[in-house]
Amino acid sequence: MSADGEPSSTASVVGGTGFTGGELLRLLAGHPEFEIVQATSRSKANKTVGHQHPNLRNLDLRFSDPEELESVDVLFAATPHGVTMEQIDQFREAAGTVVDLSADFRLDTEAQYDEWYDGHSRPELLEKAEYALPELNRENLEGADIVASGGCNATATIMGLLPLFEAGVLDGDERIVVDVKVGSSEGGAGGGEASSHPERSGVVRPYAPTGHRHEAEIEQFLGVDVSFTVHAVEMIRGASATCHVFPNGPVSKGDLWSAYRGQYEDEPFVELVAGGGGVYRYPEPKAVAGTNRAEVGFELDPGNERLVVFSAIDNMMKGSAGQAVHAANVALGLEETAGLSFQGLHPVGSP
Amino acid sequence: MSADGEPSSTASVVGGTGFTGGELLRLLAGHPEFEIVQATSRSKANKTVGHQHPNLRNLDLRFSDPEELESVDVLFAATPHGVTMEQIDQFREAAGTVVDLSADFRLDTEAQYDEWYDGHSRPELLEKAEYALPELNRENLEGADIVASGGCNATATIMGLLPLFEAGVLDGDERIVVDVKVGSSEGGAGGGEASSHPERSGVVRPYAPTGHRHEAEIEQFLGVDVSFTVHAVEMIRGASATCHVFPNGPVSKGDLWSAYRGQYEDEPFVELVAGGGGVYRYPEPKAVAGTNRAEVGFELDPGNERLVVFSAIDNMMKGSAGQAVHAANVALGLEETAGLSFQGLHPVGSP
Amino acid sequence: MSADGEPSSTASVVGGTGFTGGELLRLLAGHPEFEIVQATSRSKANKTVGHQHPNLRNLDLRFSDPEELESVDVLFAATPHGVTMEQIDQFREAAGTVVDLSADFRLDTEAQYDEWYDGHSRPELLEKAEYALPELNRENLEGADIVASGGCNATATIMGLLPLFEAGVLDGDERIVVDVKVGSSEGGAGGGEASSHPERSGVVRPYAPTGHRHEAEIEQFLGVDVSFTVHAVEMIRGASATCHVFPNGPVSKGDLWSAYRGQYEDEPFVELVAGGGGVYRYPEPKAVAGTNRAEVGFELDPGNERLVVFSAIDNMMKGSAGQAVHAANVALGLEETAGLSFQGLHPVGSP
Amino acid sequence: MSADGEPSSTASVVGGTGFTGGELLRLLAGHPEFEIVQATSRSKANKTVGHQHPNLRNLDLRFSDPEELESVDVLFAATPHGVTMEQIDQFREAAGTVVDLSADFRLDTEAQYDEWYDGHSRPELLEKAEYALPELNRENLEGADIVASGGCNATATIMGLLPLFEAGVLDGDERIVVDVKVGSSEGGAGGGEASSHPERSGVVRPYAPTGHRHEAEIEQFLGVDVSFTVHAVEMIRGASATCHVFPNGPVSKGDLWSAYRGQYEDEPFVELVAGGGGVYRYPEPKAVAGTNRAEVGFELDPGNERLVVFSAIDNMMKGSAGQAVHAANVALGLEETAGLSFQGLHPVGSP
Repeated sequence: MSADGEPSSTASVVGGTGFTGGELLRLLAGHPEFEIVQATSRSKANKTVGHQHPNLRNLDLRFSDPEELESVDVLFAATPHGVTMEQIDQFREAAGTVVDLSADFRLDTEAQYDEWYDGHSRPELLEKAEYALPELNRENLEGADIVASGGCNATATIMGLLPLFEAGVLDGDERIVVDVKVGSSEGGAGGGEASSHPERSGVVRPYAPTGHRHEAEIEQFLGVDVSFTVHAVEMIRGASATCHVFPNGPVSKGDLWSAYRGQYEDEPFVELVAGGGGVYRYPEPKAVAGTNRAEVGFELDPGNERLVVFSAIDNMMKGSAGQAVHAANVALGLEETAGLSFQGLHPVGSP
Repeated sequence: MSADGEPSSTASVVGGTGFTGGELLRLLAGHPEFEIVQATSRSKANKTVGHQHPNLRNLDLRFSDPEELESVDVLFAATPHGVTMEQIDQFREAAGTVVDLSADFRLDTEAQYDEWYDGHSRPELLEKAEYALPELNRENLEGADIVASGGCNATATIMGLLPLFEAGVLDGDERIVVDVKVGSSEGGAGGGEASSHPERSGVVRPYAPTGHRHEAEIEQFLGVDVSFTVHAVEMIRGASATCHVFPNGPVSKGDLWSAYRGQYEDEPFVELVAGGGGVYRYPEPKAVAGTNRAEVGFELDPGNERLVVFSAIDNMMKGSAGQAVHAANVALGLEETAGLSFQGLHPVGSP
Repeated sequence: MSADGEPSSTASVVGGTGFTGGELLRLLAGHPEFEIVQATSRSKANKTVGHQHPNLRNLDLRFSDPEELESVDVLFAATPHGVTMEQIDQFREAAGTVVDLSADFRLDTEAQYDEWYDGHSRPELLEKAEYALPELNRENLEGADIVASGGCNATATIMGLLPLFEAGVLDGDERIVVDVKVGSSEGGAGGGEASSHPERSGVVRPYAPTGHRHEAEIEQFLGVDVSFTVHAVEMIRGASATCHVFPNGPVSKGDLWSAYRGQYEDEPFVELVAGGGGVYRYPEPKAVAGTNRAEVGFELDPGNERLVVFSAIDNMMKGSAGQAVHAANVALGLEETAGLSFQGLHPVGSP
Repeated sequence: MSADGEPSSTASVVGGTGFTGGELLRLLAGHPEFEIVQATSRSKANKTVGHQHPNLRNLDLRFSDPEELESVDVLFAATPHGVTMEQIDQFREAAGTVVDLSADFRLDTEAQYDEWYDGHSRPELLEKAEYALPELNRENLEGADIVASGGCNATATIMGLLPLFEAGVLDGDERIVVDVKVGSSEGGAGGGEASSHPERSGVVRPYAPTGHRHEAEIEQFLGVDVSFTVHAVEMIRGASATCHVFPNGPVSKGDLWSAYRGQYEDEPFVELVAGGGGVYRYPEPKAVAGTNRAEVGFELDPGNERLVVFSAIDNMMKGSAGQAVHAANVALGLEETAGLSFQGLHPVGSP
């Protein structure tokens, strides 16, 4: 914030009608350092943002046409996969830093991209883009030109597992099963029959038994294979990753507390939650809905030589818009927590 | 805020384990002008507030015993009905302003209280206490000693109906039917069989077909009789009042817009939502979950000479903790919106 | 059932992919007197019915093309509004009795139809069709050629109010406010943005503040005006009507019990539920999910001279497919309860 | 059924107020071969069963005191863990067959019981009781005196995994991770704070990260270790087991279809659901709510040499009351499907 209390930076959101576009606008509207210059929407151009996002009715802001981008410090791209790679030159011309919330620039090489997606139009930029999971690689993000904000399920999983590798509890050749449960907002606002309320309500639905694309990010980041399965469950916001891990040697609870505290104890957006009293004894998406926080915890199963790690986030926040703003804060040298201080609500419904 | 950015006032919460106690702590923790001096809890004394309220895990605050109250500028009492009247002397000794969230001091006379509740132990103070619905009577709240924060269902109803009386659309002898739908947080965290998840989920349950005590507040505030029925529905936060009104004479939409704009257009916490486009065309609790906002709207039914008014709030916020903080802001001469700027989330589940 | 235990009648379902089509197939598959000859679907022709309706996976039945109708005793039309009137000649050629679940033949006159819908292509048949709400007009249904199964919200409302007129508690010039809460299945499986899970979950949404088309059926059947408002709430199945009525003269609880018992005590599908003990003290859709039952109950509000009537059904059953099968049973002279004996589940989620 | 269509057998339910007691009453009321002689309840003696279970309001049956048991063919004990072992002599005196729905007689030896529970008062009977999972051991159940109906999470898991052992796909020393998601009815109707609607709604809550007691049943039945974790999710009825398995050698989809078809193709209560089209491509509790069906399916993850097996049941039905009635049918030599033919509902909310 400049001395007069005015925002120090400008930002725009391309793709403002979707759920993550709306979250970006919510965060930027309350961010002390960003002035929103533009929010684009092809289908809702000239309508107020509150027309689409009822929580933003009090904002004096209208969607503009995406063809005419104004110059800003940071451009957030909340567009469907494939759009940013096509428009990356315009985006970079308009903004010093482009933060992309899609999967377009998350993988390092064209070969990886081709394995999981369908042909990249600007593969030479893959290397240039920085994958953003700020707790784990903030040093890469400072001054970055292109930031690829980490995917929701990948973020939950990586945050749960990385400390084990860092602390040497895992060495990379163990079996790792990741069983993820996610809310309906991951599917966006469009939705067909499977996303309609009568068909989607109350499900425990194996929607990606194998082959979910976020597996690619996890394996790239951690450098190991994971067995990854995603279930849709009854919530709107939230991704909960349960990682079942079989360490090669004996591990104590003390080892685990050391590993996780070592990684996270100074992190403003991470809470360790592992078996205390009360109703909320392990990580739960319900406890972090609307926030940029991740809850991480664990339990040991001595009989089966297994370690169970739980990680819970709001997929639209720590798994998307919140992480993007966090990354932008780092990229621009702002305070990391700026604009991301919402505490969350208790109790709240399907998070 | 003082010149050095420090909070200007001190506050305590008596009864910090309940849902509204938790909301007060959330709001005060983010309030620029209040320092939380004390949060009391008999059952959880010495435990962290995050033990009870998982969204507050990052706060460095423990519950203290309610027997030893410290001196503060404002004491918020989030205790069950009947407690504040018994302890009002201690509360007033501890604090210049007592904001009570229970029903103890909402009615003006002992006779009214006896009609709806069971015997008041300090009836001489009823007259002294100020009923708080700041949009409609903020002038009474400045410098108040005892503030009785308005009840959730009453707040939703009064906010929907009052502009019609102020503008002369209603004159007081019309039939008024108020059909309210509320979330499960109104029942608090205790809960018996009817509040258990399997029995409470998915209901449309007439839980107060007649005789709901908030009717007393409404009739006192508006000076008219209302036919009041409350249903429990599947949500956690939220109160939605649908008022079916039969004006004695012809009314146009223009008259209605004038009435509501006249009352609310400068109010920071009220949005008029009446039949625009998009998904959210009328007031909905889902759009205001977690916020201190009320949405108010209306529709005309010419064939039946009926006016339908909709009013939606978060019962824990505008209907309880948010309203209490708003009232305290007014009572202490702080900026009205201080600490109450959360935008809400979209989309969010059962609000 | 014939002497050898075989079904005595044949039936087909036109429009088998929708929710009510699926319910018809479920009911007919368990009906002792009906053999399902055909279930049509343009989009799913040749697929198994279990492909669309997972609860019917064990049925050995495939959708057939709607162009080729086979001869049956009863043809159930579960098609969108407007289809049956266009195809009524083919339907009648194929079946002795056509039971239409759409609104096409519910109103008596072209003038009424034009007031609420858009132009009827076969107005001369309106008079010939029998509106079906079997508890209240079963005598009209015996041997009927065209049966127009009553609409869900109309059914709930009429069942709640009719006994008051029959017993003389109301005489027709009283104010009647009907505040209905319905589940998402009323919108069908298609659904756009407003029906998507993230946008529809947890709502209390005034989706028809005034002018809901079922008002026409109610006013036709009861012969009085009603002030009718419909809210979408968080459930899938269910319609709950709360009728706020102001009788012209004094009414006692005894009068009401007489009125309702007189109407319903021998009805197999109606339960009177009015203020007994336990968790379920008044009618609730949750208690009747999946069944053909209606729960009806009431409460008196002496202070406001108001009578509150509650009526709860499963909109897909008593409000649609169940009512249609019930009507077909009557039309063909079968036992009324045949195929409709499912007790319902407790507890069950959003009904 | 005897020649005159009357029930051939008599049954009683001890512990009729709980959720599974209610389900037993629902099933027995619609069962062609059972007459309900008695339903006991200490707390609700002399009240109608409909007072507790609103779906049973039309039954003419009152709870009786559990002290006076009448003679019946089958006594179903739907009592809390520990009760049946104390009262087993009275139960056996009253009934030729006792079907216990608790865990009291599920394990074979006292040593096993002591490892997972707290001291058995009648260990000599453990050997005599037959564990019931009729699809997999119906031959043991014929004429059984004491039947221990399998636990819900164990049932789902065993049904998913057993065919792999039978077909030799697994040989017993592979890693098996079982990640279960369950509904709130598993906790019963009592419930404390964690089961209250506001705290329980919308959760993905690791409620048994390790050490869930059903692990004992699974390991006893399959003879192998499993790594077992149970999550509470937002539904009322339902248990969904996802088994992540790493076979020692190569496995093809054809091998899997052979294994599962070989085991289940003639089973009336099992559906194989593995990757077909439509919305419901894999097993889901939502598709079987209220039924005695299990859905079982699988997917291969070649990259990680993993096999994922999905199994979904209604925990109150196939996981409890339905399984108990199924077992009783077998024990008494009745038709296996008698009384268990409910198709389920589509769509339905939280199953």
